[in-house]
Amino acid sequence: MSTFGTLFRVTTYGESHCASVGCIVDGCPPGMPLANSDLQPQLTRRRPGQSNLTTPRNEADECALQSGVEAGVTLGTPIGLLVRNKDQRPHDYTETDHYPRPSHADWTYLLKYGIKASSGGGRSSARETIGRVAAGAIAERYLKLAYGVEIVGFVSSVGKIHMPQSAEDEDVDDENYLNLLRGITREKVDENLIRCPHEETAKLMEQRVLEAKEANDSIGGTVTCVIRKSPIGLGEPVFDKLEALLAHAMLSIPATKGFEIGSGFKGTEVAGSKHNDAFIKKENGELGTKTNRSGGIQGGISNGEDIYFKVAFKSPATISQEQSTAKYDGESGVLSTRGRHDPCVVPRAVPIVEAMAALVIMDAVLIQNSRRAAAASLPPLATPLPPSMSLPTKQQYQKAVDELVKE
Amino acid sequence: MSTFGTLFRVTTYGESHCASVGCIVDGCPPGMPLANSDLQPQLTRRRPGQSNLTTPRNEADECALQSGVEAGVTLGTPIGLLVRNKDQRPHDYTETDHYPRPSHADWTYLLKYGIKASSGGGRSSARETIGRVAAGAIAERYLKLAYGVEIVGFVSSVGKIHMPQSAEDEDVDDENYLNLLRGITREKVDENLIRCPHEETAKLMEQRVLEAKEANDSIGGTVTCVIRKSPIGLGEPVFDKLEALLAHAMLSIPATKGFEIGSGFKGTEVAGSKHNDAFIKKENGELGTKTNRSGGIQGGISNGEDIYFKVAFKSPATISQEQSTAKYDGESGVLSTRGRHDPCVVPRAVPIVEAMAALVIMDAVLIQNSRRAAAASLPPLATPLPPSMSLPTKQQYQKAVDELVKE
Amino acid sequence: MSTFGTLFRVTTYGESHCASVGCIVDGCPPGMPLANSDLQPQLTRRRPGQSNLTTPRNEADECALQSGVEAGVTLGTPIGLLVRNKDQRPHDYTETDHYPRPSHADWTYLLKYGIKASSGGGRSSARETIGRVAAGAIAERYLKLAYGVEIVGFVSSVGKIHMPQSAEDEDVDDENYLNLLRGITREKVDENLIRCPHEETAKLMEQRVLEAKEANDSIGGTVTCVIRKSPIGLGEPVFDKLEALLAHAMLSIPATKGFEIGSGFKGTEVAGSKHNDAFIKKENGELGTKTNRSGGIQGGISNGEDIYFKVAFKSPATISQEQSTAKYDGESGVLSTRGRHDPCVVPRAVPIVEAMAALVIMDAVLIQNSRRAAAASLPPLATPLPPSMSLPTKQQYQKAVDELVKE
Amino acid sequence: MSTFGTLFRVTTYGESHCASVGCIVDGCPPGMPLANSDLQPQLTRRRPGQSNLTTPRNEADECALQSGVEAGVTLGTPIGLLVRNKDQRPHDYTETDHYPRPSHADWTYLLKYGIKASSGGGRSSARETIGRVAAGAIAERYLKLAYGVEIVGFVSSVGKIHMPQSAEDEDVDDENYLNLLRGITREKVDENLIRCPHEETAKLMEQRVLEAKEANDSIGGTVTCVIRKSPIGLGEPVFDKLEALLAHAMLSIPATKGFEIGSGFKGTEVAGSKHNDAFIKKENGELGTKTNRSGGIQGGISNGEDIYFKVAFKSPATISQEQSTAKYDGESGVLSTRGRHDPCVVPRAVPIVEAMAALVIMDAVLIQNSRRAAAASLPPLATPLPPSMSLPTKQQYQKAVDELVKE
Repeated sequence: MSTFGTLFRVTTYGESHCASVGCIVDGCPPGMPLANSDLQPQLTRRRPGQSNLTTPRNEADECALQSGVEAGVTLGTPIGLLVRNKDQRPHDYTETDHYPRPSHADWTYLLKYGIKASSGGGRSSARETIGRVAAGAIAERYLKLAYGVEIVGFVSSVGKIHMPQSAEDEDVDDENYLNLLRGITREKVDENLIRCPHEETAKLMEQRVLEAKEANDSIGGTVTCVIRKSPIGLGEPVFDKLEALLAHAMLSIPATKGFEIGSGFKGTEVAGSKHNDAFIKKENGELGTKTNRSGGIQGGISNGEDIYFKVAFKSPATISQEQSTAKYDGESGVLSTRGRHDPCVVPRAVPIVEAMAALVIMDAVLIQNSRRAAAASLPPLATPLPPSMSLPTKQQYQKAVDELVKE
Repeated sequence: MSTFGTLFRVTTYGESHCASVGCIVDGCPPGMPLANSDLQPQLTRRRPGQSNLTTPRNEADECALQSGVEAGVTLGTPIGLLVRNKDQRPHDYTETDHYPRPSHADWTYLLKYGIKASSGGGRSSARETIGRVAAGAIAERYLKLAYGVEIVGFVSSVGKIHMPQSAEDEDVDDENYLNLLRGITREKVDENLIRCPHEETAKLMEQRVLEAKEANDSIGGTVTCVIRKSPIGLGEPVFDKLEALLAHAMLSIPATKGFEIGSGFKGTEVAGSKHNDAFIKKENGELGTKTNRSGGIQGGISNGEDIYFKVAFKSPATISQEQSTAKYDGESGVLSTRGRHDPCVVPRAVPIVEAMAALVIMDAVLIQNSRRAAAASLPPLATPLPPSMSLPTKQQYQKAVDELVKE
Repeated sequence: MSTFGTLFRVTTYGESHCASVGCIVDGCPPGMPLANSDLQPQLTRRRPGQSNLTTPRNEADECALQSGVEAGVTLGTPIGLLVRNKDQRPHDYTETDHYPRPSHADWTYLLKYGIKASSGGGRSSARETIGRVAAGAIAERYLKLAYGVEIVGFVSSVGKIHMPQSAEDEDVDDENYLNLLRGITREKVDENLIRCPHEETAKLMEQRVLEAKEANDSIGGTVTCVIRKSPIGLGEPVFDKLEALLAHAMLSIPATKGFEIGSGFKGTEVAGSKHNDAFIKKENGELGTKTNRSGGIQGGISNGEDIYFKVAFKSPATISQEQSTAKYDGESGVLSTRGRHDPCVVPRAVPIVEAMAALVIMDAVLIQNSRRAAAASLPPLATPLPPSMSLPTKQQYQKAVDELVKE
Repeated sequence: MSTFGTLFRVTTYGESHCASVGCIVDGCPPGMPLANSDLQPQLTRRRPGQSNLTTPRNEADECALQSGVEAGVTLGTPIGLLVRNKDQRPHDYTETDHYPRPSHADWTYLLKYGIKASSGGGRSSARETIGRVAAGAIAERYLKLAYGVEIVGFVSSVGKIHMPQSAEDEDVDDENYLNLLRGITREKVDENLIRCPHEETAKLMEQRVLEAKEANDSIGGTVTCVIRKSPIGLGEPVFDKLEALLAHAMLSIPATKGFEIGSGFKGTEVAGSKHNDAFIKKENGELGTKTNRSGGIQGGISNGEDIYFKVAFKSPATISQEQSTAKYDGESGVLSTRGRHDPCVVPRAVPIVEAMAALVIMDAVLIQNSRRAAAASLPPLATPLPPSMSLPTKQQYQKAVDELVKE
């Protein structure tokens, strides 16, 4: 349905052509500074019409907080917020009266609900993601303020044009790739319109998108995202492992077709002796892993290393060229769709992926907060645990507690 | 946590070396014939010790239903069931008293909970999946009886050995692959130990696993799964799209690293004009799609075509060769793990993937059942909907309703 | 938190003095006619300033649907709606800067969140209930259209002034009371300002409220509510029995102190032989109960008889007379609160109780819909059930199915 | 359904005559000592056959932990536990093959599920509460160890025999009653079989129960429960206020008809000026309330005063005397039920009420833990909040945080 999360709970509403789109964010920690201007940057990175690589639909997507904030500070109560739909052109897609658009949601919405919005994508439109991005910006703000969490997404491929230095070489020697992930910033990512941090590849990608645009066609791509300085211990086995929550979140974004964490599909080809992440003592004296094929998650739980994953986005279904297909009644014909659309969604998908990542981490932090506080409130055990069941030093766990519950 | 689903809700318990493992299945439709013998086949396909390709731990994994069934028929009340742990050897892994096993969950469980089971994987052990498989068998039984749903998983790769005829060629001409998916059966899959329906590839795969076994090493692989005759209209946008639920379910299985639906990552490389699934009138007069790059799901909703997806499993972390790593206290050393383990999990993962698929579909069916019944109970609209908002014929939607609510 | 329901899910936002209050209703059946004007009547019955018995705060409380509806018909997607706060006077309650108001939520909100809205009740204000009433009106509309459900609340006591003919006499001879419940309508209830259908008692009640008002004091009361023509089979044992859901819903309304279903507390005093509701064959040939001490629910499941319950509302905490109390810092003093408030909440509570009742029934209907459709989709059993486990005639159950899934 | 709670989540299974009854407790804090012997006392207080006031069905109800505990300490993983059904006599109630038992759940289970357990109450049997009591004992153990929480229930009325000194006198002068609540212990309560701490009343109550027993009849009663030393700040407005959760929990217990918190229904009769709980500085220097008509909860949030509430239990539906009623097919007749039953449930209901109270408090603690830890992790605000929005001293809130997160 349209609610995501357990303790940090986001509920969204809105179709492509209704009065407004928005969300309610329930469970935001109280006492956090928050203003519309904190949410606007990611909304602006997501908005249509931001460049010649995106749909020309022109929406400023101005965020209007409704509740849950007073004197610029969160109250801990539900935060209502909305963005008005302005540039609506409800009659752009008139041919869809007869044709379900191929690989679009027209047909399945009708099958599911028996009714659909008259035009545009309705609820399956990318405008639905505005609520996610605004909510994600709230989550991210908290994570940044409380733990210094950094979440950065970027375009790692467009069509067959892939960034070099991926983890995908024969030897899973991912050092260069991990270095990139360690340092990448949103500023760097935004240096070009396609949002790929490898300048040369970025140019090729932009060309590829413009090519698709000129051909009245579309093209897919992938977004890679890294989460740095995530608190450890996040994820709730067995069903709500952190990678499972991330996969759920990412595959809920329109047009996604795949998800992989850490070494991903390529990692399946490698022997365990090569794939295993050996432990090392880090410079700061803590235990860490030498490599990071696990992608920062082991046993479904974050281990303090960078969490990174990749999301596949198919080519947008809406294209302006003629398509041989069938009408609702089965009669074959040729559909030529007018209307505004993105030739490639990945540049605008970057802030959406980041937002969903923030929502997952935020909710997981709140749940793990609870467990740690609960465990820390118990009196010491009368008999110490056997070594096979406990950390050798109490300090190690204490550190985990302290990290979460700063005072 | 350890509960999965909304209306068909499965809660599991159990570690590798406790008294029993099991689950409670809440929300099973009443009036369905059910006996232990209905659940045993998939448990047996999952059990360890079934061949020389799997761990030698010997467990019969006999299912014992506790409640929710009388006179061989489900009551609609919670179904408790359990499997006793028999072949426990809690002291196999003594070296783990000093070392967190690389890429295993020892370290993260300690970070998260401050305590862990003394031996084996505890809750992160594959024995945890017994509850899933039993619950999945209940779901599958319902889906089969009510709708004829067929769920078949198989091993599509081991290491670098891939089945041919995947959708991954240049032209996304997936006809052969789709034909395979249309006809594949569990009987066919079980003709060899590795559970790959392509006999030649199966042999190579088995060799690869034995190679890993002899080298005291391990290897990864992928499992592909197809769901046929799924009811249409399943999936709950925007956050609980069917592919999002499947991704969540699959990435919650131990050792998984990736998920892709339909054309998946390869599909991102293809132009929209090629990737779009054009509509056609099928032989039975209904609307369908000519190709199926969408993998049976569009806009997050099942469209009646075969649902297929692939899951990546990494090489098992437990290997019997020496590993240079660090102890809990940071001191470096060499870990040599004894104990029983799978050199490759994919053959035993097949029934687990099928089980999780069944749980997702079952829960989605119950929710969509509800919506359809609710919509069908409304009186006809005074003013008919404009064509842009409705199906051209009432029959099409009625069919969807009828399909779900047979009498 | 601020979400209620499983399949029909309402999430509310808004404080007493923020930009707007509202809600998102997720899971509304598609294809239902819906306009702002359908929601306004209950909002108007709830609004402040409607008579001299209520707070003078003047709000028209005009409903503005944002999404989920097109061409006047629900799409099945989330329905966003809001009501703007207009008559805000944020500085009315300045003395509360020093004093937590006795029996108000100032103190506990600070303890819980560490921060609170500067004035008025913030989230604990009755304005929070606007979202509930609007959502309840949507639910009620569906229930009316699909099943003819009728939900009518009324004031059954104010202070010590109780309506006669309650079930509370010695013999639990509830015939008169049940007759009242069978016939009562909102029109009848609204014939007087206090919303008590017994005209003589109503006058005494109004006097009692005006007395409290003149004394700068307040007074409590009870609201009784009946749900007629509820579908049978509603409620989800064991934790979500229908009375448990109703109790949850009612005790979530501000200022409530108690809930009783059917014979309630008085019923505990009566022997089983007197209290049991014997079965009879009704005029329409169906099985029913002769009496209805159960209040329409047995074993947590609705049985088709009228569901009725009573809710206790305490006297409003905000009074305009001086109160000896302590400041936040513990210093004793005298608080004299200015500001607008209700001398008695029960007249305005009537539509709120009705709304929450509608939300409970609606969600329970959707869940039971699902179960019935699921059971109905199974093939007939090979061996019929023994009589001790089944209804004697298939028709009886079929009727239940038919009632829910009309076509 | 059969799951209760958000972070401390209990799922139960089992009917009156199946192999075993039990539950899975998910979310128990790790590192807590736990053994079967910790759960047995409350199971034994609940078990049938404990005195001549209860049903003669003889069950030892021995608890068998299955998982989630090693070396006598909780692992933080799901705790499976079960109690075998031993004294089953499935054919006791043969007459129910033809008659739905009045005010029992036979009829509604058939309407809801289309099938029911052949004998006894099936899932509606009191045996279902075993899982609750065991889970409640786990919750209570944590609450005791971490916060010293004390939960004590007792019988406050049987039929028309009520304990004196209730809050129900004209002046709501509840001092005596509150004193009783402050001091009452389980030992004191268990001094007589009826579990009423007022010895004289207890004798009358026991007589009343034996009277009912001899008359082959049954009688109802009420259970009052107090929760002392509850952490402050518990409860999640607006829908999950603490009293709403308690009401939900209590009305989910079989045979309950009502719930009231603090001054309850009687409190509705009193003017606000009398009902309001004025604040005072307590001996320990903290702010508290002089009276406690609120019952320890204000605005849906615990305020640190004793939480107390009362639950109404109707007379058991199963009686051994003849009842004029109708058969399933509508034909009238006389039902005479044989079989074992309780003449009055309240003595055995005491540990069930305590268990459900513990489950509510436990879950609320875990959620509030999370919020406090989250708020405490934020950096200090650049601009201090205005006094109208914050506690005058940071210490007050800090105390709340410290209380929950001890180290």
